[in-house]
Formats: sequence, structure tokens, C-alpha cells
Amino acid sequence: MMEADLIAWIRGRLPEHPRLRLGPGDDAAILAWANRPDCVVTTDLLADGVHFDLAEHAAARVGRKTLAVNLSDLAAMAARPHSAVVSLLLPRDGAHQLAVDLYEGLLPLAEEFYLPIAGGDVNTWDGPLVVSVTLLGQLTDRGPLLRGGARVGDQILVTGSLGGSMLGHHLDFTPRIEEALELHRHYRLHAGMDISDGLALDLSRMTTESGCGAELDVGAIPIADAAWEMAGAADTETALRHALSDGEDFELLLAVPPGEAQRLLSEQPIDVPVSCIGHFVDRPGLWRTDDRGDLVPLAATGYQH
Amino acid sequence: MMEADLIAWIRGRLPEHPRLRLGPGDDAAILAWANRPDCVVTTDLLADGVHFDLAEHAAARVGRKTLAVNLSDLAAMAARPHSAVVSLLLPRDGAHQLAVDLYEGLLPLAEEFYLPIAGGDVNTWDGPLVVSVTLLGQLTDRGPLLRGGARVGDQILVTGSLGGSMLGHHLDFTPRIEEALELHRHYRLHAGMDISDGLALDLSRMTTESGCGAELDVGAIPIADAAWEMAGAADTETALRHALSDGEDFELLLAVPPGEAQRLLSEQPIDVPVSCIGHFVDRPGLWRTDDRGDLVPLAATGYQH
Repeated sequence: MMEADLIAWIRGRLPEHPRLRLGPGDDAAILAWANRPDCVVTTDLLADGVHFDLAEHAAARVGRKTLAVNLSDLAAMAARPHSAVVSLLLPRDGAHQLAVDLYEGLLPLAEEFYLPIAGGDVNTWDGPLVVSVTLLGQLTDRGPLLRGGARVGDQILVTGSLGGSMLGHHLDFTPRIEEALELHRHYRLHAGMDISDGLALDLSRMTTESGCGAELDVGAIPIADAAWEMAGAADTETALRHALSDGEDFELLLAVPPGEAQRLLSEQPIDVPVSCIGHFVDRPGLWRTDDRGDLVPLAATGYQH
Repeated sequence: MMEADLIAWIRGRLPEHPRLRLGPGDDAAILAWANRPDCVVTTDLLADGVHFDLAEHAAARVGRKTLAVNLSDLAAMAARPHSAVVSLLLPRDGAHQLAVDLYEGLLPLAEEFYLPIAGGDVNTWDGPLVVSVTLLGQLTDRGPLLRGGARVGDQILVTGSLGGSMLGHHLDFTPRIEEALELHRHYRLHAGMDISDGLALDLSRMTTESGCGAELDVGAIPIADAAWEMAGAADTETALRHALSDGEDFELLLAVPPGEAQRLLSEQPIDVPVSCIGHFVDRPGLWRTDDRGDLVPLAATGYQH
């Protein structure tokens, strides 16, 4: 939670600026470029031992991840990837090979999204690997998909399935760029974000930004095979906890008005399933129905930076 | 030199892309945004113990420097600062206060250049401080100022004075944004870059990119007071070596056609002095005249990453 306090301090300290159409706080910032308010910027700095473990994971998969997490932030805004810069701070021993391996993982993903790497910075030092990626994205004429637009009565939709990402998904996931653009183009979405820190925690952020609460139908949450694998097939409560709290699912979390949600759910217009897992309510906080049918609070658990 | 090899490998590995108008290799990359080829992006990742020393330098000065070095890269392209993202990887102990101190140094410089901070990433870990800054800049209708445009006969001009920056200038320098814009607007400049790794090394890069050589009038090189202080007032050779090789001067190095250079030198249109320190020649490499009037090679010394 230290970072949360710090980020709050930074947000408060930053002056307003006409070129800054949306400042820190959402999945990415929005800049005006030549008076067009369509430039999205996002950045993530990842370090060995914090966000990945080179002792355990191949460098190519790590390189891919450093780009993929940023692409997921653009997906969360419904922005098209425009360009990237990549900076490496490499441990001195084996620096060259490590850099080559990182790029060999990162570049195929960049090519998949037709994304040019515009450059970056390369240094060596005596510490662990640090990778900083900054992405520019361009909004479509549908505008941005923000966190703060959910309204009471909206359905809560998610793409794909959740939980257990540490078994591999956190390295190999596909950023939901195409899915976000497709859904944003054809449906009226009130709010959206990506699930990076856990469904419960990220949903609580969406409710806070939107000034409402959420009631989850926990039985409808799509639990990933990996979460079942971690929990044991019979242990629904544990599997559910993984789906609610593990994070790094990098799926889309959406607030959609009821009629529009019904249309979307019946059309299932993207390659990955879309599920309805609850709805937004007036009462602040997260809620679930217990075995007796009573509403009980649901903890906003997840990955706290 | 490891980084040089690696950067060459990365440059060779990156595919061309219509949105990438100028890829890695100059002071910054140029991107096309909505078909306008005026978007400049640059990034630097700086680490404690490599680029600065928190045991020796106040965090506010370090924070200022992390932004200033990026602004200097925009100056080198004659671009106006547009927006910035700043990522921090903070040592766990005292992380909050350190971040506040860094921002208290960085924000006044951002305000001086009317530059919005659009966001970033904040994490803590057990390692030393790492700061990544990415800047967007916008070119004027005069276009970019590149390294590769020097022609035989052009005069070599520098702003300010050189050498001894480790006595404090490397932290407190003013990025030559206004100066670069002013000179680029009113004079025909063939090439330009900032002096970050030492006059001799950076000039050798400009000659390589331009396909020519350079003959330095070493007696005309403006030596900074700090370089004299480090050398001792009587030791001209040592002071000169500092001016040639220390780096982190963050002054402008320009190639200007002779008539235009004479006009610029007599008008002295910016607040800081502009000096002529030699001219570009056909013969590759760096050259100086020795005591007997003979041309001798000058080593391309400087800070090798």
C-alpha cells in the first residue's frame, strides 16, 4: 500500500496541463497531440525478482511479458498500439546474450501487433535485470474506454477465464487489444479496464472510480483450468479465491448496460468467451450472496504493489 | 563498448515501419502521428551507482537530472518538449521520502519547460534506485536537427563551455531547448547533437554519421572553469583533456555552413556564448594541428557506455 499512498501524493502534486487530457489513475494517460485528444501513453518498469524470475523463466518469455503488460494497458483503454520504446538495465555478466534473448521474445509480439520499436536505452550494471517499456497508443473515433463510467444496473462482464496465472499465463497471455477494439466498436461499453492485480481488487477500483458498488455472482465467475489445478478439482472455494485474487489474468473487465450486455453475451463476437459475473449496485463496496441468499461483503483482495 | 555492439545488433534487428520515420541512432527517434512526421521520442534509464550516486548527491538534484538529460536529447533534435512519463523503482527503505525528494527536484524543471508529467510506474524492491524517463517532443516546421548532415567546409560550433562537469554541472545544467529552437529557427544548421559523452567522442559520431572528418582548433575550445579547477590553472593540456573527454556537458554541437556560421558568431543570438572550434574536412577521423603546424590524429576519447 506504500505505492498507493505515493501514487496519490504524486497525482495530487502534478499540476493540470491542457496537453494532459487524462492524468495518472486510469490504465493509461491521454495526451493531446496537435490538438487531437487521441494519444494514449502507458509505461511499466519491471525488475527481476519483483515481476519475474530469470532463474525460473526463460529470458525470451520475460521479454515478451514486458511488452505484453503494456499492450494490455492499451487494450484497457481501447487504444491501437502505435509505437514503443524499450530500455534495458542488464547485469554485466552475460548482458549481450540476455538482451538478445529478451528481444527475441519481445519482437514477435511487436510484429503481431504491427508495432514499431522506436528505440530505447541500454546500460549494464552490477544489479539484476530491469526493463522499462513505454507504449504510445492511438484512440479510435469511439474515444477512450475509462474506469469511471460504470452505472448502477450495468452488467459486469469479463473475457476469458481467471486465476492461476502463475502457472504460465502471466508470461504467455495474449493482450486483449483486438478484443477490446472489437467490443468497443460494436457495443456501448460504459467502463473498462484490464485485470492485472486480481478481479476483486480491480473491480473495487472500478467501483470507486465510478462511485458505485458491485454485486458478484461468484458462481458465474469463469475459473481458469490453472486455478483448478492449483486448488484441486474438488475445492471450489479455493479455485474461486484464485480467480478473485491471483491477478495477472490480463483479461478485460467491462461495465455494460443491461440490454447491450444481453446482445453481447448472445452474440459472443470475439474468439474468447465473454461472461456476465454480476452487476453494479448503488451500495458502495463489493458484495456476494452467501449460501442463505444474504448479501455479504467480499474482500477486495489481490496483488497490492 | 559492449553496449555499442548490442545497440548495433538491436538496430539491425528492428524491422522498418512506416510510422518510424527515424529509428534508433540519433539523439531521439521520430514517429509519424496521424501522418504528421513531427513526434520525437527519447528515453533514458538511470541507476544509482551508474549514472549518479545518492550517497553523494541530494535526491532532488538526481530527480532533476533524470529529466534534464532527456530534455537535452530533445534539444539535440530541436524539438519542443511535449510530455513525459516517469517510472521509479525505489529501494524499500525510505522509499516514500526518496520519491517525494526526486519529484521535488524534477517538477520545477518540468514547470520551467511547461511540460506535463502524464504518469508512470512506481515500485519498490531490495535494489538501488532506478529511474526511467520517457519524453515526447514536437518538431517545429523547420524539421529535425540530425547528426548526419555535416558537410566538408562546415564550421564546428559549440554552445557554452566544456569539461569538469563532475564538479556539479552534470546535475545542475540547463538543457539547451530554447537555445536549440532559437538557433534552428534563425540559422541554417546542417547537423546538431548534444555533448553527453565528451566533445571528442560525440564529434567523432557526428563525422561518422555525416561521412566526413573534423579538424579541431583546440586553442579555440571553450574550457569550463570547472575543468581549469580540476586541472590546475597552469595546466592547459589537462584542462583541454577534460574539455574533450569528460562528457555530461549537455551543450550543443553544431555543423553550420561558413557564411551562416560567421553571421551566427557575430550576432551571438542566445544567452550563452557560441564558439567556433574547427571545421569539417574530407579526410575521415578527428584531427588537430600540433606545435609544428602538422595535422595529427586526435583520439575520440569520452565516456564509453
